[in-house]
Amino acid sequence: MLLYNSQLSGNCYKVRLLLAHLGVDYERREMDVIDRSGREEVLGERNPALRVPVLDLDDGRSLAESNAIIWYLGEGTEYVPQDPFDRAKALQWMFFEQYSHEPNIAVLRFWITILGRPERFADRIPGKTRAAIAALDGMERHLAARAFVVAERYSVADIALYAYTHVADEAGLDLAGYPAIRAWLTRVADQPRHVAIEE
Amino acid sequence: MLLYNSQLSGNCYKVRLLLAHLGVDYERREMDVIDRSGREEVLGERNPALRVPVLDLDDGRSLAESNAIIWYLGEGTEYVPQDPFDRAKALQWMFFEQYSHEPNIAVLRFWITILGRPERFADRIPGKTRAAIAALDGMERHLAARAFVVAERYSVADIALYAYTHVADEAGLDLAGYPAIRAWLTRVADQPRHVAIEE
Repeated sequence: MLLYNSQLSGNCYKVRLLLAHLGVDYERREMDVIDRSGREEVLGERNPALRVPVLDLDDGRSLAESNAIIWYLGEGTEYVPQDPFDRAKALQWMFFEQYSHEPNIAVLRFWITILGRPERFADRIPGKTRAAIAALDGMERHLAARAFVVAERYSVADIALYAYTHVADEAGLDLAGYPAIRAWLTRVADQPRHVAIEE
Repeated sequence: MLLYNSQLSGNCYKVRLLLAHLGVDYERREMDVIDRSGREEVLGERNPALRVPVLDLDDGRSLAESNAIIWYLGEGTEYVPQDPFDRAKALQWMFFEQYSHEPNIAVLRFWITILGRPERFADRIPGKTRAAIAALDGMERHLAARAFVVAERYSVADIALYAYTHVADEAGLDLAGYPAIRAWLTRVADQPRHVAIEE
């Protein structure tokens, strides 16, 4: 398999982390997250949104959208629940991640740390920060009584939410007031064959 | 089952449309999309994002996130693909819908038509409109060679994308330049037991 990857991207990290857990070998092709020229040529046929990650399967077909990719790769393994309700809850949190969490935390991290130009986005940072805090508050309430996001087992739902939560400091967010999230981050990082976002 | 519903919401419409296809009876509890007071009390335990739709199952458990709900309800029926790659592609388009499509088209529709106050959001409408057009362009390219979003069969991926595409005019978007989308809208509306968003 070939992963169109950006090492800095939490969305790409989800795929790398699950592939590490699964012990699957794959190639990477690095895409620049700042200079986006050339994406149409490389990704146009593969992903209408022109975003990474994109995964080329061995049969030549391509998948896009990080959470769809990890659901596909995890299906039939211990990383995707089997019970129908647990599966629905995992998807619920993965859609929450893409709608309420990533558009705020990942975008703040991009503005503040990846581009390193918070002053250019000063008018939009307060609103994004409020929405990011609301997402973290929802996670904190959920995790206060749970070891993992769904069914008390580590799953692709944890991987999806871990990707940008564990770098929330790079988005200007302080997790000091989120003890349940911090304990969960440690549990996730303690999983067998865990890899860091830099790897 | 009990659906926490807003009749105006395309996300709630997805659930109503699939339940109509499936011929499943359910109750509705209407939630105001403009006056959001009281949501914490009603939805707080059910959905950390405090959004509708939320579906209470007959066993008392609750599901949130429209696309997770329709995946759960459709699983095992003709509306969710069986082939692993087709399932992944359906999820890819459903994540695309929640990340690239709904946050632009649904939000524009809310500002322009539901609230009816476009002047209040005048500074943000151009950016949202550009992003909405990019999402529609991606759909148009995809549907130009296809009858439905995945595997040439009507599925939950079509339902997810139909919900806000078919009211794009209420978001200030003109579908005249999108013949493949318009033909697909007709095919979706021609499905057995189709209901309109008003129903």
